[in-house]
Amino acid sequence: MRKIVLQLAVSLDGYIEGPNGEFDWCFTDQDYGMSDFFKRIDSVFYGRKTYELVLSMESEAPPGFPKLKEYVFSNSFDSVRKGAVLVKGDIKAEVKKIKKRKGKDIWLFGGADLVDEIILAVHPVILGSGKALFSEIKERTWLTLTDHKIYPNGLAFLMYSVKN
Amino acid sequence: MRKIVLQLAVSLDGYIEGPNGEFDWCFTDQDYGMSDFFKRIDSVFYGRKTYELVLSMESEAPPGFPKLKEYVFSNSFDSVRKGAVLVKGDIKAEVKKIKKRKGKDIWLFGGADLVDEIILAVHPVILGSGKALFSEIKERTWLTLTDHKIYPNGLAFLMYSVKN
Repeated sequence: MRKIVLQLAVSLDGYIEGPNGEFDWCFTDQDYGMSDFFKRIDSVFYGRKTYELVLSMESEAPPGFPKLKEYVFSNSFDSVRKGAVLVKGDIKAEVKKIKKRKGKDIWLFGGADLVDEIILAVHPVILGSGKALFSEIKERTWLTLTDHKIYPNGLAFLMYSVKN
Repeated sequence: MRKIVLQLAVSLDGYIEGPNGEFDWCFTDQDYGMSDFFKRIDSVFYGRKTYELVLSMESEAPPGFPKLKEYVFSNSFDSVRKGAVLVKGDIKAEVKKIKKRKGKDIWLFGGADLVDEIILAVHPVILGSGKALFSEIKERTWLTLTDHKIYPNGLAFLMYSVKN
């Protein structure tokens, strides 16, 4: 079955955005495993907020960003852009259906509790405030570290599978 | 000059205690670098809450825990136990004085913004709620990763120096 993979840059204090939504602290000088990651996925799950962000940043997609099947999870939208799929109602049931379809793994861009794998690019910075990474996971969840890479500039790339 | 070193176990979501103050998620089957760490320190800084915890857990000190000079930072205490030093008033000034005294490095057990070095034992667990590690650091702070070790059970030991 396809896996849902959380792949995000995070500060050492667990923030994925600064207090004003900033991403300017994220290292962009190297690939940091993204091209390998893009090879194993063909779809992406967005929540409402992330999808709005993606629409607003359309022209700024990083080089090598693949064409992905987009699933947008929102009960407040009526429609999404052409080619994308709007998912409403019983989200857990819909996610199960999508996971059972044939395809590569699915990138979860944002926080959620449906995840099978967590890949974090832990940046060597304390942001102090901002949007917290795991705000939607409220229960103790043990993980298995499956891979890691430490870059010379201090970025710690940590891959975990979720025991569930 | 002596360094102040933050050395703590932390969950992947940045908590140093569970929602009820639990430490039961911390790996205790190995040393995880603690004996090396204890060789380079001779003093410890406690805040009020941590000191109260230490007093209550006196008989449970882990094996190999060294005899340290204790500094307790609190404006609400009138006294501390024999051998310990109570620090009140202008804490930053007092800390500077202590750092200039001869001695080994100082273990900061708890969160604070006076730190020179941060050593985290990042456990492969999401706690979901609890006490946050960096609640007292409110400004963006860049770090330099100085050392790391990844253990087979998934604990990521990360050492950073603070650029300040």
